[in-house]
Amino acid sequence: MTKVKCGISMSLDGYVAGPEPSLEQPLGVGGEQLHEWVVKLAAWRRAHGREGGEETASSAVVERRLAGVGAHVMGRDMFGGGPGPWSEREPWNGWWGEEPPFHTPVFVLTHHPRKPLELRGTTFHFVTDGVEAALARAREAAGDRDVAVSGGADAIRQCLAAGLLDELQLDVVALLLGGGTRLFGELGAAPPQLDQTEVVSAPGVTHLIYRVTR
Amino acid sequence: MTKVKCGISMSLDGYVAGPEPSLEQPLGVGGEQLHEWVVKLAAWRRAHGREGGEETASSAVVERRLAGVGAHVMGRDMFGGGPGPWSEREPWNGWWGEEPPFHTPVFVLTHHPRKPLELRGTTFHFVTDGVEAALARAREAAGDRDVAVSGGADAIRQCLAAGLLDELQLDVVALLLGGGTRLFGELGAAPPQLDQTEVVSAPGVTHLIYRVTR
Repeated sequence: MTKVKCGISMSLDGYVAGPEPSLEQPLGVGGEQLHEWVVKLAAWRRAHGREGGEETASSAVVERRLAGVGAHVMGRDMFGGGPGPWSEREPWNGWWGEEPPFHTPVFVLTHHPRKPLELRGTTFHFVTDGVEAALARAREAAGDRDVAVSGGADAIRQCLAAGLLDELQLDVVALLLGGGTRLFGELGAAPPQLDQTEVVSAPGVTHLIYRVTR
Repeated sequence: MTKVKCGISMSLDGYVAGPEPSLEQPLGVGGEQLHEWVVKLAAWRRAHGREGGEETASSAVVERRLAGVGAHVMGRDMFGGGPGPWSEREPWNGWWGEEPPFHTPVFVLTHHPRKPLELRGTTFHFVTDGVEAALARAREAAGDRDVAVSGGADAIRQCLAAGLLDELQLDVVALLLGGGTRLFGELGAAPPQLDQTEVVSAPGVTHLIYRVTR
């Protein structure tokens, strides 16, 4: 059965990006450190068409996370957005280059309509009618496979608050960013409940895996 | 050599107390859930003069944390404060009852002077000249033993920002509080660096232990 899962790197102080994000530094000052643990892994490099890399206790976590995903959902900023209509930025195909690493349909949450964008192996669909609609379309596209909610923080919070996530995987990086974009904020009076199902400790990062119950 | 260490329970979304703290609910709405993992442990109950309790993977973490502590440092709110001079509240001996569980000198950070308060096994000293002075006095009182910075969030953040902590132990509880008092906030442009030294996974909680480097 399709599972809706979310995996994201967070600093110990709760940030998924550093302060002052910009076109040059989309993850903000110091934010690249959040992903040092993953970009050096052979499992991550293979998924991005690169050779080499290391094996650590994180390898199996990443392999399982990448496996069996049939569709992605992400926020406008993670695609490479910003406020305002797309026409102000076109031709702008996001952060992800000619061959994005998703290799599935990707549903982008946005307030501004745009025709689907087909790149090598990945088609981005722009969804303007909310997170529940995006998840429904992603589930349909994924068939029996899983849906990955990839980020950013807003998209994940919306999914959590709406009870749409089945699994939350936090990669807690041994890092204090001291400011930036927080993953968590107000979740309302009845936040979802969590069952801690697995913990994997690896160099510089701990993977905390929870089942989300309603 | 004396180590300055801090151990505190935090929800996955970064809160050390729930929303709307009050005299009746000093940990805010839902905040008691942060300590369910510890109050059921035999190790915790023994330290509080009670019998019974469970053994879990958390037991050894708690035993080590309690062992070898020669002095505590805490914020006014953790002692049982609030803004304004103590004279407005005296006789008020804090949250901790006739026999507080510390059994060492405790240095309380406050803006308002007050004579030391001697209760059974624990003397509270009220320090008005800042966190560095409180730590210096606690180190002296502890001798060869360790100093524990017990909370709340403000006191821990001040110690972190001033580079006064040697070890940070976070008990990440499988819980979303959705609001309340955050442990972490702005830490300035050069937050301290962390080395992840140990991870212990236990029912409903993961203990993340870091060495703090400057």
